[in-house]
This record gives sequence, structure tokens and C-alpha cells, in this order.
Amino acid sequence: MKPIGLINGKLIDLNETIVPMEDRGHQFGDGVYEVTRVYNGRCFALKLHVDRLYRSLRELTIPAVYTYDELAEFHDLLIKESGIADGAIYLQITRGFSPRAHGFPENVVPCLTMSIRPAGAAPDKNKLEGAKGLLIPDERWLRCDIKSLNLLGNVMGKQKAKEAGCFEGIQVRDGFVTEGTSSNFFVIKDGVAWTHPRSNLILTGVTRTLIVEKIAPDLGVPVIEKRFDEAFAKAATEAFISGTNSEIVPIVALSGQPVGTGSVGPVTRNIQQAYWAMVDRECGRK
Amino acid sequence: MKPIGLINGKLIDLNETIVPMEDRGHQFGDGVYEVTRVYNGRCFALKLHVDRLYRSLRELTIPAVYTYDELAEFHDLLIKESGIADGAIYLQITRGFSPRAHGFPENVVPCLTMSIRPAGAAPDKNKLEGAKGLLIPDERWLRCDIKSLNLLGNVMGKQKAKEAGCFEGIQVRDGFVTEGTSSNFFVIKDGVAWTHPRSNLILTGVTRTLIVEKIAPDLGVPVIEKRFDEAFAKAATEAFISGTNSEIVPIVALSGQPVGTGSVGPVTRNIQQAYWAMVDRECGRK
Repeated sequence: MKPIGLINGKLIDLNETIVPMEDRGHQFGDGVYEVTRVYNGRCFALKLHVDRLYRSLRELTIPAVYTYDELAEFHDLLIKESGIADGAIYLQITRGFSPRAHGFPENVVPCLTMSIRPAGAAPDKNKLEGAKGLLIPDERWLRCDIKSLNLLGNVMGKQKAKEAGCFEGIQVRDGFVTEGTSSNFFVIKDGVAWTHPRSNLILTGVTRTLIVEKIAPDLGVPVIEKRFDEAFAKAATEAFISGTNSEIVPIVALSGQPVGTGSVGPVTRNIQQAYWAMVDRECGRK
Repeated sequence: MKPIGLINGKLIDLNETIVPMEDRGHQFGDGVYEVTRVYNGRCFALKLHVDRLYRSLRELTIPAVYTYDELAEFHDLLIKESGIADGAIYLQITRGFSPRAHGFPENVVPCLTMSIRPAGAAPDKNKLEGAKGLLIPDERWLRCDIKSLNLLGNVMGKQKAKEAGCFEGIQVRDGFVTEGTSSNFFVIKDGVAWTHPRSNLILTGVTRTLIVEKIAPDLGVPVIEKRFDEAFAKAATEAFISGTNSEIVPIVALSGQPVGTGSVGPVTRNIQQAYWAMVDRECGRK
């Protein structure tokens, strides 16, 4: 079992130097990415990830270059060659390599890089017992709907949360709660799940979509996609974040204050278990 | 005369693949950069660029690793080895190479890459006759004061201007004009030069600093560092952008409307010539 990489379809060692310095990913963050979880040797929700990848590419006018079938094949190749049955596959496409200038270059060929690394299949302590969140200012750009490589705002926010002993930074813009630094954010109030609406201010997570469109309706939990402020979040009875790697992590404290009872609430637990059941079905996991 | 590169002090060909895919520059844009002009075989205002580089690194908590003397030596090495007497040296430092995770990794070594490419020493048509600007929404993050690799907002803005037949996109946030996508922006009104104040919303350009602190005072042109709106900019008698590569480019039209008389104004021309005279003195150019 060994983490490995891939560039434009060719397997590589992750320590190999594969990118020229003038790749636009390296100099401008001019590219997009996806992370897909692998359970039991199979990709979960790959179609939703690739659809979003294509949308991100379109928004930045980067040619798609690879079909869904080709990308699916690369994912399978990485799983097979690495021997990793439970892991995460990272994929990024940059606009390509060209002498540095801000505007789009002509005749440039997009560059695809991918990697696979192991990720625990069993839920960790954060998922089981809940984790702490820290409310932080949202300093990111106004196109958070594009899953781009411009992640410094997210990086700095995650680090701020980490240094405060929290698992995730929950971002607040103009008084309204947007999302986590690498997750979406939900609160439960009076049995209803609230989350920021789809807009340029959040990334529409695949896990978020599954919760809003399938899991919550199946459980009979109403969802309101409407923005809410810090005070509303602090007064919630439950809260959680969702994401490909986080799956569902209950947030039991926000900026040092307990959320609801301060332990994992029943609605969150039901959504989490329904998510795992969905993974089990799709990936043939017991 | 050949463009060349350098990684951590070692000369390289610009087509060489030198970066592993998990360099944080490539995956997060987690790094900073500078561009310094070379005239007559000498770097212009290198000290100011390196000072700003150190500030950017501090803001992102990336260790500086190289001293001013070492960086100056690398600049000289690139000039000598490339045979390029008039050009631009690009320098970037990323946080380094580590398995992908948002928060700062432990024990990571920053990576320095540099390149030199030729740039015309003689002023081009834009500098002599003026160029068109396009007012566009400022969609960037809220730490534009850091010269980071998160440049997608700038890239998309520059491309938008280019496609509208304009030389530069002049960004507007909440109704107020901030700066160009790779330049600072000035307007002249009643003989006074106005520009956005230093804040988290703009990058304090080296050329901007030289104009505000030295050139304008020497010429007796008062400078007001205060934000102004779109209507104010459109009603100006003159406008220009400043930047290391642009030097001073008069902006003679804004979003299709002439600025003042629609030709290069006298205050702009004086500032431009004083800038070139400063370059001549520092770089021993005739």
C-alpha cells in the first residue's frame, strides 16, 4: 500500500518533480481540483465530483480535455496500482505551462495531476463525539463557487482554527455564516436544517448536495437554504459540517460556547448514519 | 540572450520540470512573489521589492530562508548567465512540499524559484500614447496587501479587459476604485493626484511608493491617498496606472469614455518622465 501520483495519465512517484515553474497552477493558482473518497476500493459519488469539475473548468474557460470515462479510469488505475482500498484521490487541472502573463495564453495545454493517499475507513473521534468550530472572518474572494486552487483564505482560516484548538474554522462574511474552510456548515433549529444557499459565496459540496437533496428528505428533516447570522448559529440546538473527507462532523462548540447540549444531537446523528449507509450501498461496504 | 530559471540557488532551464505536485504553491497558491525590472544589466529598486517580499512572507508565516544579499546575488547570477540586460526577474517562494492538508505542515522547507525574461527598455505605444482601461468588479480576497500566488481574480479581470480591447482592468469594490489587476491606479483632478490608500484592499506597489513618496513631492504635485468612486474617476482630468512592468501607463479612456481630453495629460507625462529619469540614475542608463 503506497501513495502514488499520476500526470496526464502516466503513473509517477509523489516525490518526482513533474511541474515546470511556469505552470499557471504554480504561479497563479490558475486551475481547479476535486477530492473523491475511496471506500472498499470504489470511488464514492464520482459522477457528482466530475460534473462539478467540469463546471469549475467552464467558469475559468479551461478546456476539459478528459472525458468522464477517462477520469474514472485514472481513478481506478490509482486504486489498483497503490493497493489503497480506503483513501482519498486528489485531482487537479491547471490551465497549463506558458511564459508568465496574467491574461490567458494561446495554445496552452491543460495539465492533469492526481494522487491517492490512504484515509481511515472507520469514523474517528471527531465524527463520533463531535468537534469544536471557531467563527472566523471570511476573507476569500467572491467566486467561492469555483473549486479553484486559490485557497490561501481557506488555508489561513484552517490554521487559525487549528491554533485555537478547533477542528474547523466557520467563516462569517458581513455578519452571515457562509461555510467551513474545507466544508459546508449546517445548523439545526426546531428540527429544521439550515444552510447557506448556493451562491458565489460558497462551494456547493457534494456531501451538502446529497444531504439537501436525498438524505434530509428521506429522514423527513426540512431544509432551509437561507443565510443566517452568527447569533442564529450560536442559538442552534445542533450544528455540523459536511465534506468529502469530513463526511459529517458534529460541531458541539462554536467559538468556545456549547452548541445546544454540547454533545452530538439526534438529527445530526441520523444524517451521519444515513450518509454512511449511502456509502455502504454505493461502495458495497458492509 | 536566453531566458533561464533558478531553483533554490541552482540554475535551470525554464522547460525543466522542477516542482513536485504536492508543492503548496501548486495546490494552494500558498506562496508569495515579486517581479523586479532589470535595466542596463542592473536591478531597479531591488531593496524595496525584497522588503515587500519579507513582509508578504511574514503575513503568511513562511520563513524567509534567504538574506537580502543572497537574493541580490541570485538576481545578478540570472542577469549574467542569461545575457539579458533589459528584462524582468520573477521570484516566488512557496511554503514547500508536503502531503496535501489545508493547515500549515510541520518541518516543511520553502521553495524559491526565479526566472529572467527579456523586456523592452524603450517605452512602447501604451506608455507613449496612453491605453484604455475597463472598470470591472473587484472579486479578489480581502488580503490584497499580500503579494500572494492567489491571482485568479487578477487573471480573470485582466482577461476581461483584454477581451474588451483594453490594456488593464481597473477594479471597483463596493463602488470604490481600488487598483488595476497588476497595477495601482491614480487619477488627477485639479492638479492633485488621487490614489486608493494603503489597506488590505490593495497591493502597495513599489512604483506607487516611489510616486507618492518621491516623484510627486519633487514635482510639487500633491497626493491624496483616499478612496474615490467610479464617478469621481470618470470625471478626472487625467488617469494612469503604475507598476513594475507597466512603469507609468497613461489611461486615456475608462470603459469607453475619454478621460479628460482623451490624450496623455501633462501631470501624467511629468510623473512618467521623472520615473524614467530615476531609473536612468539608479541603473546608469543614458
